[in-house]
Amino acid sequence: MSRARDITAAIKQKIDKIIFNSLPDQDKVNEVQLLYDMMRDYPNRSGKGLRPTQCVLYCEAFGGVEEHALRTAAALELFQNWIVIHDDIEDGSYLRRGKPTLHCEYGIPLAINAGDALAGRMWEMLLSNEDELGEVKTLRLLRLFLNMLHRTTSGQHIELSWVENQKWELSPEDYMNMCRNKTAYYTCVVPAIAGATIAGFNGDFDEQIESVGLELGVAFQIRDDILNLVGDVAKYGKEIGGDIYEGKRTLMLIHCLREASETDKAELLRVMSKPRDEKTEDDAARVMELFEKYDSIGYAREYAREMANAAKEGFEKLSFPGPLEAVEDLKVLIDYMVDRDC
Amino acid sequence: MSRARDITAAIKQKIDKIIFNSLPDQDKVNEVQLLYDMMRDYPNRSGKGLRPTQCVLYCEAFGGVEEHALRTAAALELFQNWIVIHDDIEDGSYLRRGKPTLHCEYGIPLAINAGDALAGRMWEMLLSNEDELGEVKTLRLLRLFLNMLHRTTSGQHIELSWVENQKWELSPEDYMNMCRNKTAYYTCVVPAIAGATIAGFNGDFDEQIESVGLELGVAFQIRDDILNLVGDVAKYGKEIGGDIYEGKRTLMLIHCLREASETDKAELLRVMSKPRDEKTEDDAARVMELFEKYDSIGYAREYAREMANAAKEGFEKLSFPGPLEAVEDLKVLIDYMVDRDC
Repeated sequence: MSRARDITAAIKQKIDKIIFNSLPDQDKVNEVQLLYDMMRDYPNRSGKGLRPTQCVLYCEAFGGVEEHALRTAAALELFQNWIVIHDDIEDGSYLRRGKPTLHCEYGIPLAINAGDALAGRMWEMLLSNEDELGEVKTLRLLRLFLNMLHRTTSGQHIELSWVENQKWELSPEDYMNMCRNKTAYYTCVVPAIAGATIAGFNGDFDEQIESVGLELGVAFQIRDDILNLVGDVAKYGKEIGGDIYEGKRTLMLIHCLREASETDKAELLRVMSKPRDEKTEDDAARVMELFEKYDSIGYAREYAREMANAAKEGFEKLSFPGPLEAVEDLKVLIDYMVDRDC
Repeated sequence: MSRARDITAAIKQKIDKIIFNSLPDQDKVNEVQLLYDMMRDYPNRSGKGLRPTQCVLYCEAFGGVEEHALRTAAALELFQNWIVIHDDIEDGSYLRRGKPTLHCEYGIPLAINAGDALAGRMWEMLLSNEDELGEVKTLRLLRLFLNMLHRTTSGQHIELSWVENQKWELSPEDYMNMCRNKTAYYTCVVPAIAGATIAGFNGDFDEQIESVGLELGVAFQIRDDILNLVGDVAKYGKEIGGDIYEGKRTLMLIHCLREASETDKAELLRVMSKPRDEKTEDDAARVMELFEKYDSIGYAREYAREMANAAKEGFEKLSFPGPLEAVEDLKVLIDYMVDRDC
């Protein structure tokens, strides 16, 4: 674990420097200063840097140099930051990286707008690749990020519409499809393909990399959902049980609804269907009891382990022309992403 | 007026075809179909097409061909559509182009996400210029749009933070600065510079065009603010008096607050400071009375006229290498933008 943290910390430090140099800092119009402060808020909260680290390591593993991947890696970090500003509003989340979400601090209107402004800085970061990577690769990376945005908004839409339409009858496959789009693309698939692209690999391995990234990303999200139930808030940084309050259709919930007796299922639905503000701590505890009764967390853990193993097997089959060290670091990182405790 | 409508209608038709061909249509996952429908919703409501029309005409006036400007013009229309999805949420608006705003129809979470998804399609549209315009112009247009996004989000932030912080002591200059950023850049400056860029003019006239666009854009926004008070809802498409309910700091309000007696000013502030849901029709009528008492609408009209005249004078000084017809059409369009009744 600490080895993985060393790897990500070293890269994160370089990325952060690029990000904070690129974000606007001071403005003579007083009101705009607040916008700039809001844009720097989430990037300033210490994220793990898993996405940029993968991008840099994949670039090296495919024979490229770190320096060439840093701006794209920074753009991935900016993507994560602006999209979660919007996601936090959409999900009604209270905590992000241990502090109140941006809209809880500044209100929804300013937060939506700050997310849009930060998105602009992400595209700008990608465009700034032109000098070092040339026009063709720069445009290719822009297209890759656009595909990522399409996927992520589709996945987020699916999840939100389940909540909006009170849809509960879902299968693990429904969850997988949502999760691949919502999380796996931007968390694992695109960081890897971007790294390969920067190193000069034009689509040769895309399908294999995509398959590894999708499995790894789903395993990562399931792990995240489990930590949301059983994690340590000081480490995890989000509200423990937040997914229950927000009515999220996690793999645990889907499993429990399918396995539970009629009575238990009815109770689970009654509690989960309540609006967020009406759910009590007792409600959340009751959901946890039912998850335990039907071993739904055990089921999800097993599901995630299988996904992680499939990802690792797929990864072993990739042939990397670059240095062994980067490949070894990637393996450490992959293990960390599916076994982390925060 | 009808001449201006003929000009815009002809171009809007071509733009719409490109937009609807590019937006995703059908998806096998049921929930995603709703996202696609939401993305098509605002583009389907008949906007006037002022921004794309300017882009095409400026391209022609600078000696370029219409065909080359159409995709960028379509991207401008997409910008307007996704940004107003978010603005409508931020401003708490109820009506857009004569129908309920997207978030009133589908809720805030899905609407924020649909705006983000539509933004992705705008960037994709710009990237699709590559085949016809080449890499250099494509990248230049992307940078221009990024600058537009920075400006627009700054302007929107300024206006929102006035509302958020209950700031009322504002000068016409404060309004101008907000309005140039929020409206003028994307409504007039960028359509013109984009057209010139496509035609092959690389920054030679940018400052002059920018100055014309800023004046025209401010005149356009003041006209919009006046129509918001005195317009015909069937033509205007937004809620009449909506700006009063939303607490917008229009030029009329700023003027009235500066001119009114202490008693009238106190009353105006008392009414305007109420949360949107607590404002009554009588409140809105009382604000209108005070605007009339101090001739604040007359002041704004005069201000807009001066801005419009300055814009027209600046426009006359531009030397266009392209056909006279495009220049004449632009003049008709400019007159329409500052004198329109809807």
